[in-house]
Amino acid sequence: MVVTHTHEVATKGQGDAHDITAAVARAVAQSGIGAGTATVFVVGSTAGITTIEFEPGAVHDLNEVFEELAPRHGEYRHHLRWGDDNGSSHVRAAMLGPSITVPFKDGELLIGTWQQIALFEFDTRPRRRELVIQIVGE
Amino acid sequence: MVVTHTHEVATKGQGDAHDITAAVARAVAQSGIGAGTATVFVVGSTAGITTIEFEPGAVHDLNEVFEELAPRHGEYRHHLRWGDDNGSSHVRAAMLGPSITVPFKDGELLIGTWQQIALFEFDTRPRRRELVIQIVGE
Amino acid sequence: MVVTHTHEVATKGQGDAHDITAAVARAVAQSGIGAGTATVFVVGSTAGITTIEFEPGAVHDLNEVFEELAPRHGEYRHHLRWGDDNGSSHVRAAMLGPSITVPFKDGELLIGTWQQIALFEFDTRPRRRELVIQIVGE
Repeated sequence: MVVTHTHEVATKGQGDAHDITAAVARAVAQSGIGAGTATVFVVGSTAGITTIEFEPGAVHDLNEVFEELAPRHGEYRHHLRWGDDNGSSHVRAAMLGPSITVPFKDGELLIGTWQQIALFEFDTRPRRRELVIQIVGE
Repeated sequence: MVVTHTHEVATKGQGDAHDITAAVARAVAQSGIGAGTATVFVVGSTAGITTIEFEPGAVHDLNEVFEELAPRHGEYRHHLRWGDDNGSSHVRAAMLGPSITVPFKDGELLIGTWQQIALFEFDTRPRRRELVIQIVGE
Repeated sequence: MVVTHTHEVATKGQGDAHDITAAVARAVAQSGIGAGTATVFVVGSTAGITTIEFEPGAVHDLNEVFEELAPRHGEYRHHLRWGDDNGSSHVRAAMLGPSITVPFKDGELLIGTWQQIALFEFDTRPRRRELVIQIVGE
């Protein structure tokens, strides 16, 4: 069985992170599928998905490392093409990846107590993000 | 239902990237499976898969950040073992990851207009890459 | 069909890596599922999963790059919150990601000869890690 769920998140631009664990857990519970996988996929190429202990310190630390790796005000070839200012966003998003696949059983996500599913906005402006939660199982 | 599709790509060595979105979309369409997930997995430990806005600027920018992170001509313990010169390839591939799982519905990939599925070659020589596209759904 | 398998690994702290390919292959073989995907997910937010040529050199090289990227003795906001010393662990784990999805067919993983599935411990102390191997297929 497959159930496709979509979820929207309004973000505030680069560095803004959202704990989407509850939304994924709710989609799994409502799907009526007992065991399987939930693939959480962000549509677009300037945001990423991972798991993290979702507290402001750890979120800040990850963003800081991305700032060193791909500085917002660095030079990017992508800027030359479109006159965009979000080369750093594309690099960060491609490195973190747009999706995560989380197992569940008895209708519950098999993740840690201090492990949350997080959307990281990397774009330089606020965005309305569409997440696809694809639930596959039985 | 499960359909296993394989796809080959000839690459030109480190930094060469390929947009494989059309190949994945075609495999999904031909599978006869309406909704589910397509897991795209590159066989081998010196290439990676992600999504990116596939234009030469963004591809170049990502490769540049990997060059800073794991320089091609840096020192690697892996070189000592095999006399290889591709330590940078192994590090980059492990960081980016060998696979991505993409949801689809009504036979179409649920990705963004400017979001392509990309194979990044990290090895220091041309390779013939085998991709597995594993389609699971109903 | 879905089969949920769990696997425990005792780790020695930051940088310790484990080749878990055999455990995943065994879980797939025992599941009785012929074709599908095995999602390997580490419970907790201070460890990661990827594929790598599992030899000490390449494992060392990846850890070295993570040490440059998120130094163990760097300054992290996460430390201020809990008095923890594992800010580097959280950053590395979020970047590498907690899971990987591997295709299989005829009961065998479709991975390369020199490509192993690896658990990387990033926490600053030994941990008992629980891995979920979620097998979905037919």
